[in-house]
Amino acid sequence: MQSRFRHVALIGKYQAHGIEPVLEEIAHYISRQGAEVTLDRDTAQNTGMTLYPTLDVAGIGKACDLAVVVGGDGTMLHIARELARYGVPLIGINQGRLGFITDVPVHQVCEALGPMLQGDYEEEHRTMLEGQVVRDGEVIFDSIAMNDVVVSRGATASMVELRIDVGDQFVANFRADGLILASPTGSTAYALSAGGPILHPGIKGWVLVPIAPHTLSNRPIVLPDAGQVTIEIVAGRDASANFDMQSLASLWHGDRIRVGRSAYQVRFLHPRGWSYYATLRKKLHWNEGVGG
Amino acid sequence: MQSRFRHVALIGKYQAHGIEPVLEEIAHYISRQGAEVTLDRDTAQNTGMTLYPTLDVAGIGKACDLAVVVGGDGTMLHIARELARYGVPLIGINQGRLGFITDVPVHQVCEALGPMLQGDYEEEHRTMLEGQVVRDGEVIFDSIAMNDVVVSRGATASMVELRIDVGDQFVANFRADGLILASPTGSTAYALSAGGPILHPGIKGWVLVPIAPHTLSNRPIVLPDAGQVTIEIVAGRDASANFDMQSLASLWHGDRIRVGRSAYQVRFLHPRGWSYYATLRKKLHWNEGVGG
Amino acid sequence: MQSRFRHVALIGKYQAHGIEPVLEEIAHYISRQGAEVTLDRDTAQNTGMTLYPTLDVAGIGKACDLAVVVGGDGTMLHIARELARYGVPLIGINQGRLGFITDVPVHQVCEALGPMLQGDYEEEHRTMLEGQVVRDGEVIFDSIAMNDVVVSRGATASMVELRIDVGDQFVANFRADGLILASPTGSTAYALSAGGPILHPGIKGWVLVPIAPHTLSNRPIVLPDAGQVTIEIVAGRDASANFDMQSLASLWHGDRIRVGRSAYQVRFLHPRGWSYYATLRKKLHWNEGVGG
Amino acid sequence: MQSRFRHVALIGKYQAHGIEPVLEEIAHYISRQGAEVTLDRDTAQNTGMTLYPTLDVAGIGKACDLAVVVGGDGTMLHIARELARYGVPLIGINQGRLGFITDVPVHQVCEALGPMLQGDYEEEHRTMLEGQVVRDGEVIFDSIAMNDVVVSRGATASMVELRIDVGDQFVANFRADGLILASPTGSTAYALSAGGPILHPGIKGWVLVPIAPHTLSNRPIVLPDAGQVTIEIVAGRDASANFDMQSLASLWHGDRIRVGRSAYQVRFLHPRGWSYYATLRKKLHWNEGVGG
Repeated sequence: MQSRFRHVALIGKYQAHGIEPVLEEIAHYISRQGAEVTLDRDTAQNTGMTLYPTLDVAGIGKACDLAVVVGGDGTMLHIARELARYGVPLIGINQGRLGFITDVPVHQVCEALGPMLQGDYEEEHRTMLEGQVVRDGEVIFDSIAMNDVVVSRGATASMVELRIDVGDQFVANFRADGLILASPTGSTAYALSAGGPILHPGIKGWVLVPIAPHTLSNRPIVLPDAGQVTIEIVAGRDASANFDMQSLASLWHGDRIRVGRSAYQVRFLHPRGWSYYATLRKKLHWNEGVGG
Repeated sequence: MQSRFRHVALIGKYQAHGIEPVLEEIAHYISRQGAEVTLDRDTAQNTGMTLYPTLDVAGIGKACDLAVVVGGDGTMLHIARELARYGVPLIGINQGRLGFITDVPVHQVCEALGPMLQGDYEEEHRTMLEGQVVRDGEVIFDSIAMNDVVVSRGATASMVELRIDVGDQFVANFRADGLILASPTGSTAYALSAGGPILHPGIKGWVLVPIAPHTLSNRPIVLPDAGQVTIEIVAGRDASANFDMQSLASLWHGDRIRVGRSAYQVRFLHPRGWSYYATLRKKLHWNEGVGG
Repeated sequence: MQSRFRHVALIGKYQAHGIEPVLEEIAHYISRQGAEVTLDRDTAQNTGMTLYPTLDVAGIGKACDLAVVVGGDGTMLHIARELARYGVPLIGINQGRLGFITDVPVHQVCEALGPMLQGDYEEEHRTMLEGQVVRDGEVIFDSIAMNDVVVSRGATASMVELRIDVGDQFVANFRADGLILASPTGSTAYALSAGGPILHPGIKGWVLVPIAPHTLSNRPIVLPDAGQVTIEIVAGRDASANFDMQSLASLWHGDRIRVGRSAYQVRFLHPRGWSYYATLRKKLHWNEGVGG
Repeated sequence: MQSRFRHVALIGKYQAHGIEPVLEEIAHYISRQGAEVTLDRDTAQNTGMTLYPTLDVAGIGKACDLAVVVGGDGTMLHIARELARYGVPLIGINQGRLGFITDVPVHQVCEALGPMLQGDYEEEHRTMLEGQVVRDGEVIFDSIAMNDVVVSRGATASMVELRIDVGDQFVANFRADGLILASPTGSTAYALSAGGPILHPGIKGWVLVPIAPHTLSNRPIVLPDAGQVTIEIVAGRDASANFDMQSLASLWHGDRIRVGRSAYQVRFLHPRGWSYYATLRKKLHWNEGVGG
């Protein structure tokens, strides 16, 4: 049977050694299903693969109707953020270690891809954060993030004090190592380490997690994602803002980080029968006793 | 100016001594604004007040277009649950100690009620949980809850094992002291003590909080409130289910507690300028240093 | 070479099926090293083993200079508590699943026991808790515990209020689901689930862990084990006290649970090279990524 | 009655405005009790006080048999660390806001100092941490700390990986924002914010608290203070080490921070009837409801 996707992009983890055979197998398989295959340009350069035409990410976004990403959650996060504005759906292939968002194991890739290319998959949408850093009324940095926006203290500062507003409502001033504003996707990453809850991807909200807050009752808060969150640097040297690890350092007092829901969403395709909870159970070792 | 509400019910905390003068002042004030005043029957009996006609809660639900409740969060919770099916909005008056949902201090009651009776207020809706306990296919208990549904181990059992499903998806088995499924309203009550996050009332979700889980990675999960959550007793003696503290004890293995969103919502009216975050700051002592 | 231990008791997990071959192999091995072997009476009855003489636990305590325990941490805990007053050292053999205090895997039992019987082992002492429940000045229950003393709310009570004193100093009143007073041994059991820290066995202290405390700043406290801790029931229906799961239910307001360090210590023998931290790493899955 | 202390040093918070009257009142009061009063040289310079002779901290350490410190916990921490090697006992006077270690309120200073100068006080000893940073076998930094030694990631690094050994035993590798090794005194400071327990000052141990650890089961561990703790930088850019906020930044992979118990202890004098638990209750707002 024929692939319903006409033009599939194949993207591999950068700097990965020995990934060519896997990519070639996948590319070959997709071709045989009747879809055109294009390689991500950086992937082609890193691997030296020459059998398929290449496009950069923007080109992929315009030309392709599916992207197959081979790598870990980090690779997927990066590509998903880049492709989000084009609405191209993504399939994540992990190389042995299950990811939260790369759920097809590489050794089952053809069995899994077969039905998916024919349209038999589960589609899931993930919200993204979009934000700016504003200094003296001017935007000095803007970016989008799939996982989280983090504002943290400088390395040798004892803390940062941050003022939070949601829409036009004052929430509180937090003195802490920093604050994480995480999407459901990011709730199982850094925010979880800092004491935040898990947010099911169906939740239309963010979780605001203070990192090592001075005030013990400063607990994580789940906020509707409809409003804009403003984080202002009130005190603390050398604070920095990170959007999925894209950093802006040396923030000043008075700088404000404004974060809202991006107009774009990420579209993930999963094999039929995929379960968010099954991923949680495996990643968090829920059935293996005391340690988790 | 005239009250926009035509018939206002006045309800006091049960067993409260010395609450009559306050109730009388409020009743008198409301009357003077041109609204009919009816006393809750139990309140009238407990206080011996005879100046106003009385109705039981069902009667109030049918006849009144506003209920003014004097007491703490517990009283408010109780009345709000009872009145939810009638759609009667509520105003909560606290007697000195700010509550999460009783936000008008009794010493400012007339200043606050004046504009509210004239229609100048902020209206906020709170979701409720509705659930059944099912044994061998039969419903043996059903109730609604504003705060939470809690399933816990018996007093002398070391733990309870609970299987959780959301809709037709298996989530996990949890071995713990118990599990709390809390609404946004309940997220600042027992669930917070057990390590859960705060859920803004605008979040369309519940938080599932395991109490002292054996597996350390069994962290709180925020779930969309659209699906049905099923909690099954897998192991553990003498487990009990509590809906806002209405208890069903001695549960059996195989008993299932099914919980979904109630068709009813609670309507709270707040004074203009009310802020959810201001209540959080005050109740959680956010600006008073280390202890919270 | 000859065993330095002259008379070794062998004790198996109660109600364990198929444990005879293992026990017989171990008994046979110990005999061959020149030590007399005695079976625990209950173990002999449960398994039907008749080849070796039997003694009850008190008899073992008086006659034997080593006890080899086959089972999980629960079995070990039970036997260690019983034998503590006799000063008999213990070796714990687990049946496949590493325990915190049963560190010799059954498939390596002879390799491990060999050198240990010849005196090549690491000896470690663990403190125990000793306590009484006092009502109206009279002791109505007393017991010792290796893991913890737990005071908890009744199943349908919303909380228990407990007053804590250490020696003649008032600590605080705690409103919570309960309180755990755990030894270093118990710190990796229930106390860990309730949010307590890990206490290295070399720490001369207990950790007091409130379970789901109303006051968020009621954090676990590590107390010197030299003083007596008094826990008084101030409020709450049907509270219970548990000493390693031996329960006294239906406590009254005013009942006091007094806990101090037992005069007895448990003596564990470990294979040379044993490491407390290695056990932690394995039991808590410290090197397996996010879930722990 | 005469002071038992012959020569009392008086030390004030640096950069404090308007502290002179308080210092003068205290100095005058101590003089009248028959003790010689010496001002800390920096305090004299900052305040312009000229009525009393001055000494630097080393001079105070050699000449004085008591130091009275006016300021907050930060001032006290700083002075206590400096004076520790001289064995001079300290009394801490707070200026209105109770500190964990500055327990005499300034408005009661003379009532409190009277009996203390006559020998009626409670003496308490606090352990200190002493450590070195070792690079390629050479000590490149050494310091002592009353609160904690903290190793943390660089501002724009996503984490630091640290290897911990205690004595010659490997504990684990931790991937986290950082690690805090806190004394009992430090357990109520940064370590508490990061999720650590409270350590009673009588505990002969440190608590090792990972900050936002990747592995959820990496819980705080209380370690005996007899052993040396070694923290090695395994991965992560720009890590830094802080001893009570004295920082060494830009650590390299392979750098090791070695920490042990200092030979010196801090001697605090408290008014008779002082209670560690009372300070906890007040500082942590234990009797003020949900927020702590």
